[in-house]
Amino acid sequence: MDIARIEAAAERLAGHARRTPLLSSPFLDEIAGRRVLVKAECLQHTGSFKFRGALSAISALDPDSRKQGVIAFSSGNHAQGIAAAARMHGIPAVIVMPSDAPAAKIAGTKGLGGEVVPYDRATENRDAIGARLAEDRGLTLIRPYDEPEVIAGQGTCGLEIAEQAAEAGVCEADVLVCCGGGGLTSGIALALEARAPGLRVRPAEPEGFDDVKRSLAAGEIARNAQLSGSICDAIVTPQPGELTFPIMRRLCGPGLAASEDEVLKAMQLAFRHLKVVAEPGGAVALAAALFRGEDIEGDAVVCTISGGNVDPEMFKRALDTPL
Amino acid sequence: MDIARIEAAAERLAGHARRTPLLSSPFLDEIAGRRVLVKAECLQHTGSFKFRGALSAISALDPDSRKQGVIAFSSGNHAQGIAAAARMHGIPAVIVMPSDAPAAKIAGTKGLGGEVVPYDRATENRDAIGARLAEDRGLTLIRPYDEPEVIAGQGTCGLEIAEQAAEAGVCEADVLVCCGGGGLTSGIALALEARAPGLRVRPAEPEGFDDVKRSLAAGEIARNAQLSGSICDAIVTPQPGELTFPIMRRLCGPGLAASEDEVLKAMQLAFRHLKVVAEPGGAVALAAALFRGEDIEGDAVVCTISGGNVDPEMFKRALDTPL
Repeated sequence: MDIARIEAAAERLAGHARRTPLLSSPFLDEIAGRRVLVKAECLQHTGSFKFRGALSAISALDPDSRKQGVIAFSSGNHAQGIAAAARMHGIPAVIVMPSDAPAAKIAGTKGLGGEVVPYDRATENRDAIGARLAEDRGLTLIRPYDEPEVIAGQGTCGLEIAEQAAEAGVCEADVLVCCGGGGLTSGIALALEARAPGLRVRPAEPEGFDDVKRSLAAGEIARNAQLSGSICDAIVTPQPGELTFPIMRRLCGPGLAASEDEVLKAMQLAFRHLKVVAEPGGAVALAAALFRGEDIEGDAVVCTISGGNVDPEMFKRALDTPL
Repeated sequence: MDIARIEAAAERLAGHARRTPLLSSPFLDEIAGRRVLVKAECLQHTGSFKFRGALSAISALDPDSRKQGVIAFSSGNHAQGIAAAARMHGIPAVIVMPSDAPAAKIAGTKGLGGEVVPYDRATENRDAIGARLAEDRGLTLIRPYDEPEVIAGQGTCGLEIAEQAAEAGVCEADVLVCCGGGGLTSGIALALEARAPGLRVRPAEPEGFDDVKRSLAAGEIARNAQLSGSICDAIVTPQPGELTFPIMRRLCGPGLAASEDEVLKAMQLAFRHLKVVAEPGGAVALAAALFRGEDIEGDAVVCTISGGNVDPEMFKRALDTPL
């Protein structure tokens, strides 16, 4: 993995993926005690950064394989990204999705033309289900993060951060990235290594599901003790990826974790001051930027809002959370 | 008023106002039965397009007048725009604001350094209050819409729409603009006349407060029967402006009106599919695009989301509205 692969992905995505804005608000700056720059990937097509990696991977397939179709397993955002990117190429997309995924994500995937195959997160193995379907129907499996072209696609977000932070006059800062398997985190880290070496990526995770933070601290892959029970469903994975962890270990600073209460507050503050919709997993980096400032250095911080696919009931819960 | 004045405003705003994205979603296209392109001015600084006109007007003042400070009367969005633009120039801003304005807007104005002077919308005359304060303290009054440099500033939004619609392959379409006094509507209309003559502006208003629609139909200024009782507080004005109406009459197609129920649904759909926060007055054009399609021609429609400054309670009401 290197910057050339990210640049090649950026060329394939040009005119298809959105260049999302880098937002800010003096009210957030005041809460954080430093400038806060927010990369609003919730405004990406399908409501999350996952569209970048999905389109990057599908557009990199050889045409004969591609026309057979693709398959993905996902709690929702990767699913929607794959469905939208597959539709753009006019090919079938099968999505193996946990049966307890948020209704908005299931509906979103189906509405984009994806064929949804539900599975029980507690009792069934999604990898086995996916492998069987892929073999039966000649589908190419697109992994959600441990896939070079996916990482390259997510890295295009980092190219934009490098440019937009420079335009905002920020050349040295921590860049907090909402982190599940590490595709977005490692992609942005690779892009910034080449284009903005003063910007240091740090993974942000929900408390109790901070496998990447613990893995970085230990220098080896650690697992989450549990996989359910977080409101940040979109970014809960068993452990860092095999491809992404070495990249994160080489390039990232220490991880940060935010509580559910902080995540809900961050969602409300993004509503109030940025006018964007953040899902819980997509708000964890902003939560860390706003409420874990003692662990951050510098007079500015960059963070991603990685997705906005949240059900109205959860969003109302965020709006009702006392600040 | 001509395009040169808008271009001059664009130069003064460059690097200060945001170039807001033109968003879309296949789900909205399906509801509308045509492509829907949404200019998300809720993502502008201070959460509405008003920042453009405010900064345009303040930056056009002669330096000696400017340093004395400015005064504005506003239900909230113009207030925040003026406060933020004044702070950028390091000058005082006094805002005469109705005492029943949404809490988010009052807090926003104060938080941006504005001095808020409340008045009773039912019993007091804001113009008289403003004139007295202006004289006493040497402040320059910045009108919310009947002011050439404000219209020019709002017109910069039209320059962006012309470019972004062309990038999206849309050269002929109705452009629905949330309309109060007509500053944004007339500014965009002037910009599009010069830069995208196939795009025709049409004002969008709440039902029962459609003074501009009725004025255009009658060929002369008509007034609203009432000024309170709409959830779309941000865009309720007594009548079209003296400067803006002739521009709208010359350049705009027929007005559209949307019901409160349609506005609330549009807010929810912007949440679900665009991941942006729209206030009621800012969602009226999207509501017309989605639900008044029989009055619109062409296979694409452009609309503004003009602001996102909405209290959580009203937003929850939108999320609870059955679709």
